[in-house]
Amino acid sequence: MSFTNNTITFPELIRLKRDGGQFSDADIQVFVQGIKSRTIQDSQIGAMLMAIWLKGMSEEETLQLTREMMKSGEVFVWPDEWLVVDKHSTGGVGDKVSLPLAPALAACGCKVPMISGRGLAHTGGTLDKLESIPGFNVSQSVEQIKQILQDIGCCIVGQTESLVPADRVLYALRDATSTVDSLPLITSSIISKKGAEGLNALILDVKFGSAALYKDLDSARHLAQSLVTAGNNLGVKTGAVLSRMDAPIGRCVGNAVEVWEALECLKGRGPDDLNELVSTLGGYLLWMSGHSPSLEKGKSEIIQKLMNGEGLKKFEDMLVAQGVSADIARSLCADGADYFQHMKQATHQTELKAQHGGTVLEIDGLVLAKVLHRLGAGRNKSGEKIDHSVGAELLVDVGQQVTKGQSWIKIHHNSPGLSTQQHTDLQKALVIINCDKFKKQSRVAQFIHPNMS
Amino acid sequence: MSFTNNTITFPELIRLKRDGGQFSDADIQVFVQGIKSRTIQDSQIGAMLMAIWLKGMSEEETLQLTREMMKSGEVFVWPDEWLVVDKHSTGGVGDKVSLPLAPALAACGCKVPMISGRGLAHTGGTLDKLESIPGFNVSQSVEQIKQILQDIGCCIVGQTESLVPADRVLYALRDATSTVDSLPLITSSIISKKGAEGLNALILDVKFGSAALYKDLDSARHLAQSLVTAGNNLGVKTGAVLSRMDAPIGRCVGNAVEVWEALECLKGRGPDDLNELVSTLGGYLLWMSGHSPSLEKGKSEIIQKLMNGEGLKKFEDMLVAQGVSADIARSLCADGADYFQHMKQATHQTELKAQHGGTVLEIDGLVLAKVLHRLGAGRNKSGEKIDHSVGAELLVDVGQQVTKGQSWIKIHHNSPGLSTQQHTDLQKALVIINCDKFKKQSRVAQFIHPNMS
Repeated sequence: MSFTNNTITFPELIRLKRDGGQFSDADIQVFVQGIKSRTIQDSQIGAMLMAIWLKGMSEEETLQLTREMMKSGEVFVWPDEWLVVDKHSTGGVGDKVSLPLAPALAACGCKVPMISGRGLAHTGGTLDKLESIPGFNVSQSVEQIKQILQDIGCCIVGQTESLVPADRVLYALRDATSTVDSLPLITSSIISKKGAEGLNALILDVKFGSAALYKDLDSARHLAQSLVTAGNNLGVKTGAVLSRMDAPIGRCVGNAVEVWEALECLKGRGPDDLNELVSTLGGYLLWMSGHSPSLEKGKSEIIQKLMNGEGLKKFEDMLVAQGVSADIARSLCADGADYFQHMKQATHQTELKAQHGGTVLEIDGLVLAKVLHRLGAGRNKSGEKIDHSVGAELLVDVGQQVTKGQSWIKIHHNSPGLSTQQHTDLQKALVIINCDKFKKQSRVAQFIHPNMS
Repeated sequence: MSFTNNTITFPELIRLKRDGGQFSDADIQVFVQGIKSRTIQDSQIGAMLMAIWLKGMSEEETLQLTREMMKSGEVFVWPDEWLVVDKHSTGGVGDKVSLPLAPALAACGCKVPMISGRGLAHTGGTLDKLESIPGFNVSQSVEQIKQILQDIGCCIVGQTESLVPADRVLYALRDATSTVDSLPLITSSIISKKGAEGLNALILDVKFGSAALYKDLDSARHLAQSLVTAGNNLGVKTGAVLSRMDAPIGRCVGNAVEVWEALECLKGRGPDDLNELVSTLGGYLLWMSGHSPSLEKGKSEIIQKLMNGEGLKKFEDMLVAQGVSADIARSLCADGADYFQHMKQATHQTELKAQHGGTVLEIDGLVLAKVLHRLGAGRNKSGEKIDHSVGAELLVDVGQQVTKGQSWIKIHHNSPGLSTQQHTDLQKALVIINCDKFKKQSRVAQFIHPNMS
């Protein structure tokens, strides 16, 4: 038991939430300070996380938790004239949106201090993808981040030690204690970090569907609303897009193969659904931050930056600023680039054939991600090395007609062959129906707008 | 995250209880083995304790948890011809029952391997009380315990390292995580330890009232029923007595002063309520274990051992066997003993006067214990030293007539004087009414019998 003079003790705090009570602002401050100073025991954090998971938190409590967590570390302050924006996604299969989005926004004149994460289990990580490029360094000091934003306008980096230290403790323990999927805990974790980035505007890409944390639109909307409320209360203009996450985004899933697809997108040759997501998320940010007069105008400006090479140039500059040699950066960004001259390619490419003909109804992203994870593309626990060359290329799209025996996926792997189980799992991921009237849905399902009052 | 081959992971176990599920026997084994081997993290134990506190456990789960915890360490095995019995109390103010009860049962021919605890906060501990006697050693090896039981029949010792190691971990964390008062957690903690003692019969003294963990009879009965069920299922004939815990037991509260009162009881001069508890608990054990044909006969036999000096002789022998010099043991057990020749006496004795006349309705044991705790009789955290000489002697009894200005309590203390707050608190502990028809109730309210089927 730890006692602080004249304030509530940790066991008393835990009891309060255990019994369904409501925390005061001071209570939440005691909890977060206890985490930051490590005076609260891990067992007490575990008990508190479970009490919060089971008893919930009010909007006021969630806001205060977010605020106190943000204040537990450094908060970036930027020059007044900068328009600082960022995007956060709740995680999807083949989600390489950040790679073209950050430089496209920089090409529009925005500053994008994108702090990203690594993959865990079947979820991919933006930092892992970028590390497929030789020399790319995700560890940048605060001073380096400022310099890159000043010179180029965007960077994609790992979390620094100084930002939201309380979240690093909670985040690690939530996984171990089965308290990940709690609205107040997710909200405070995401928004405290984004708040500490000193943003003017933030767009949230909240996924729903079979390959997302939330399977249905209602749950995702619930989370999006909580995130939008907390973000705006912290002084960041915040909106959310609810987007479908069943089939992978684009055609590529993995690490090096996703960089390849992102570069194609920056060269104006991205797949439709990726272009749609990048331009919608970017356009929304431009509109919300006052840079563009409407969402449609914002989207057009992003598309333009993908088509005219300005986004690509920002990406090339960012690569060099983050440690990639100028030769490699230039070569990757050249029009007829041989991507695998610089990024490691897997030793084997295995194509799978459609077992009957018809219309592609579904490609199960979760099954695909799990197979790739076992082939080495993902890690089981944080700190593990991954194989950047493992991945998959989809050769067909949802809504497309296929014939029996047509190749539908190419797996890049370094193990000698796929196991029978992996073959079976992958074939189950492809659902074909006999109906040619099926039309692919847009990924973007709904917007949650900030309360502009 | 920790994985065990082919078994459920710790996060999965936590999720199961979080979602209100029921553990299988194998699940509980994984949890307890994880605690024993320290492969489960403290944060996970904290989250699990909270999930159990909030979602509860079925009778089957509680039994399995008790069994697995017992099996986490050594389980005593005694000679077949021994009748091995013990008592456990849920804790009260002035509860020195173990001190006369163990030797009285030994005088009846029983073996009593009494494993006791230390005090924490306002709760006293049998071990602390006995350590008021110079030389008394509560740490005895398993071999020493066997020898003392063989030679004398009773010992009062601390928990050995080898018994129920899983409980030592959980017990320490329950306090820190506000998960103490959970029926399955209390039941498994108490009964696993008693099961490991290899008992034939066990009597539980479950307290209820203002100075007990459970304030009302119903909650106490609920706990008693759970304890009795678990004990009998473990193969120990187990019964419970529900006893009132408002006013302190007997006249003395503290450490040295309680040894003094226990010795008086063993000399046939104990206060009525202490005699009643000792003889009821002991008599019930003698009856339940088949030694006596009825509860009444069992009670009479215990009373006889208090009156004829046979219990006293066992106590004297036990003191010597546990390290007290023969001279001191003999002197303390002599008829006209000067107890404070051997035990430290406090430097100050302060008497408080009744502020008006009438009948004593109530003496609040909790208030009294809290004041004594602050004067040094108790500890704030485990491991702290306490002052054995601090204590209180009640000079009046519930139901007694008092006049204004009559001394009602004598406080033994080493600090120069009582504070005004302490004076005020103590005076509030004495409730006097103007009614001479009030009759003191028996402490024993109800029995919970083992299911003899």
